[in-house]
Amino acid sequence: MAASLPAIHIPIPIARSSSGKNRAAIIRCNQSKIKTNAAMSVHLHLRIERPYRSETVISTSSLSSSWNLVEREEEEKRVGGPSKSTPEKEVIGSKWREIHGSMEWAGLLDPLHPWLRQEIIKYGEFAQATYDAFDFDHLSDYCGSCKYSKHRLLSSLGLSRTGYEVTGYIYAMSHVDVPRWLERPSHVAKLDRWCKDSNWIGFVALSDDEETRRIGRRDVVVAWRGTVAPLEWYNDIQGRMEPLEGADVTAGVRVEHGFLSVYTSKSESTRYNKFSASEQAMREIKRLVEVYRNRGEEVSLTITGHSLGGALALLNAHEAARTFPTGEVNVSVVSFAAPRAGNTAFGIDLRRLGVRVLRVVLEQDVVPRMPGLVLNKERLEKIKGELRCVYSHAGKELRLDAAASPYLKRGLLHPVGFHCMETYLHLVDGFHCSGSGFRADAERDLALVNKACGLLVDELRVPACWYQEANKGLVRDRNGRWVRQKRNPEDVPSLDGTYH
Amino acid sequence: MAASLPAIHIPIPIARSSSGKNRAAIIRCNQSKIKTNAAMSVHLHLRIERPYRSETVISTSSLSSSWNLVEREEEEKRVGGPSKSTPEKEVIGSKWREIHGSMEWAGLLDPLHPWLRQEIIKYGEFAQATYDAFDFDHLSDYCGSCKYSKHRLLSSLGLSRTGYEVTGYIYAMSHVDVPRWLERPSHVAKLDRWCKDSNWIGFVALSDDEETRRIGRRDVVVAWRGTVAPLEWYNDIQGRMEPLEGADVTAGVRVEHGFLSVYTSKSESTRYNKFSASEQAMREIKRLVEVYRNRGEEVSLTITGHSLGGALALLNAHEAARTFPTGEVNVSVVSFAAPRAGNTAFGIDLRRLGVRVLRVVLEQDVVPRMPGLVLNKERLEKIKGELRCVYSHAGKELRLDAAASPYLKRGLLHPVGFHCMETYLHLVDGFHCSGSGFRADAERDLALVNKACGLLVDELRVPACWYQEANKGLVRDRNGRWVRQKRNPEDVPSLDGTYH
Repeated sequence: MAASLPAIHIPIPIARSSSGKNRAAIIRCNQSKIKTNAAMSVHLHLRIERPYRSETVISTSSLSSSWNLVEREEEEKRVGGPSKSTPEKEVIGSKWREIHGSMEWAGLLDPLHPWLRQEIIKYGEFAQATYDAFDFDHLSDYCGSCKYSKHRLLSSLGLSRTGYEVTGYIYAMSHVDVPRWLERPSHVAKLDRWCKDSNWIGFVALSDDEETRRIGRRDVVVAWRGTVAPLEWYNDIQGRMEPLEGADVTAGVRVEHGFLSVYTSKSESTRYNKFSASEQAMREIKRLVEVYRNRGEEVSLTITGHSLGGALALLNAHEAARTFPTGEVNVSVVSFAAPRAGNTAFGIDLRRLGVRVLRVVLEQDVVPRMPGLVLNKERLEKIKGELRCVYSHAGKELRLDAAASPYLKRGLLHPVGFHCMETYLHLVDGFHCSGSGFRADAERDLALVNKACGLLVDELRVPACWYQEANKGLVRDRNGRWVRQKRNPEDVPSLDGTYH
Repeated sequence: MAASLPAIHIPIPIARSSSGKNRAAIIRCNQSKIKTNAAMSVHLHLRIERPYRSETVISTSSLSSSWNLVEREEEEKRVGGPSKSTPEKEVIGSKWREIHGSMEWAGLLDPLHPWLRQEIIKYGEFAQATYDAFDFDHLSDYCGSCKYSKHRLLSSLGLSRTGYEVTGYIYAMSHVDVPRWLERPSHVAKLDRWCKDSNWIGFVALSDDEETRRIGRRDVVVAWRGTVAPLEWYNDIQGRMEPLEGADVTAGVRVEHGFLSVYTSKSESTRYNKFSASEQAMREIKRLVEVYRNRGEEVSLTITGHSLGGALALLNAHEAARTFPTGEVNVSVVSFAAPRAGNTAFGIDLRRLGVRVLRVVLEQDVVPRMPGLVLNKERLEKIKGELRCVYSHAGKELRLDAAASPYLKRGLLHPVGFHCMETYLHLVDGFHCSGSGFRADAERDLALVNKACGLLVDELRVPACWYQEANKGLVRDRNGRWVRQKRNPEDVPSLDGTYH
């Protein structure tokens, strides 16, 4: 933490309403509403978080009692009893620049400021949405597309409360010079009725008026999807770096060839990538910035992504920062589990351009150590040394530790589970400061952790990998025969990759 | 086929209505309604099936065209166009004894008589229902129970059209002296809130008045569930046979100890097995037989089951035949994929008691060769010889061949898929006669095959193992949190194992 940063004397209440009736942002800066609860202590400085207090965290040894709480609460819900509602969001408009990284998050990360935690989770949920909405089903007519039209994406995933509207979709080519991971099996490609050479890889969204008031500026978000394939694809990265167009050439800025090719590839022969992912994203970003700058609004750009998506977010941020005049648009990246995307000069160049990067990484996740850590032992000897020297991370780090959560299994290696976006969101929600236990007042739904893995302890009785469709999308027709359920017509991608 | 059996001169029409409005049985013996279609040729003798005609079967080489037909039909359904309805059922009242095996199915099996095929599929669907309705979820509050009350079982599974009503449930102890297969993991047993020592193992059902008219007698059905565990459990059978109570002792009747213990075990300490499966089944059977015999109706007992359920069906049939005076109740077994349950004397004794046994077996399924074929090679040498000599099958065999179906993958071993009940039903539906191809007019929904396996060829684009709950039973509560869905109150088992 830079000790020279001035203290900012703004009261930051942590008050939460007990009523869930109005989930939207409510201005609640009124000092009188601050709760006196020890766990809700008043925070007078952005730089000074509430001190670590043992009673505010759950230690591993107290799991049984906390689990009972969860059980009891669940029981209450079942009989229609009282239950906590979604917490109301704090109004952060006055401090949005600091939360957005203008000071490199000095004093906000350890302990983690609740306002920042809330914003990290918001962006993380956008990154998670790129997985939840992706059509992975290789038997689907629209495999590789988004399951929902942009108008229904957030509401379909229960994210209406974020206060954002999706304005555009981004596609990336699937047969560019990257590992096999984005490609589908050949017998599927053969059958594919939708589009076998492009995949939906993310979206652009915009804060609505209410959220804009709460966060103090119009926020353009770009969320990039990560990989669909096993972790091993990182093994396939060739360790080839190449210069980045527009970067400070004299400084030797270089980025990983594979990531860059996902970001920049296009072909007239494809349906959705006549324009590259870069061009699609930048066109929409520029359009939105222009509209709202012309209205005299302050505009920020926040780019997020998980895994590969985190690497793409950096490339996108670099391009955006080059595009807009300095100071016109604040550009930040909030990445999760991102691999190293380029060399040290790339990180320096991002900073020179004013891009703020917050990297959320989990101690137990191997992907953020890649390239550089190679899973395949045979290749390890060959390239480990050179890669580690060459690739470098950019920005500030928020380091999570799975051992902090009493809800996660211990003692075993769960390479997939530790890389899952929902695991990250769970640990951000429970993070107080490094070395402390899990926040007692963490409210994020624990069941979400097991969406695509089985990390939760058995005692919670949440099924592993539970995010699945009923009967894999088959439904009975009126004759009693099982047929593939048609997509809602408005969720069928049209010829240009948009939706009707 | 016994050549000495007299030909029975009753016209047997194959007519099918093109309208699906009345799915119930309609008397249709009227000669004038017999279709003249070559594939619907008139059959004058029960013993003389329509001859094998190449145009009535689909050869493997013609898959693509037949698949196109399936596709086209599916398209029609999607746009609400015309579609085949469930075929109307033939009235078999006049010939029910032969269909039920009084003549040991002489002349009805090869080629397979359509009336018999229809009845085999009906009973097979009851056997399948014992799997579809079983709560396998080790995290469920009611793991090991039936997911539906007896009043809702058949309708919940789309089997209302069978014209039967479930009248009773049967439970079997789960920690008797059998292999590990019925037991749940220890950490689950610890958490189990329902009943960890009993599992739902089957049901008793009764034909309703309409079905009774169609099939010529009041039919009591007992359906026994098979194993929930991997095929390997057959390895654990100890090869211990023991005398069967009530059987002809001088003839040396012996049955497999493991199967018998499932059938007869009880304990005062359990909740649902204070009475054994045998006692529960027989009590209900006797009750129903008494009620309808007192009304002067003719009553049959048809016992069905798949895998272990087929072995239990034989034990149940032996007991039932001993219970009722000769000729009072016709007792038949229709088993699928059943292992050998006892020695040759057991088979002879069943026949002496008047039990007719139709065993449906698939050439490629290993289970019907057990005990006798041992998966574990180390134990193979030791006991193969003696077991094969000792264990014996009973009754008539209907032998299926997976190679007959152009819809199933070839060239690979699918020990699980070839053992699945739905695979059996598919092959019965397509069976014309041994060595012929697949019936062209087979109408059973192909998608069902892949419920719990991936045997269907990729071209059909039916997902593998698709029978699954949305989000493994988790639902969002009104606060947006994921919670376990409560069972419908009427589907919660009450303290005595019945339902409210």
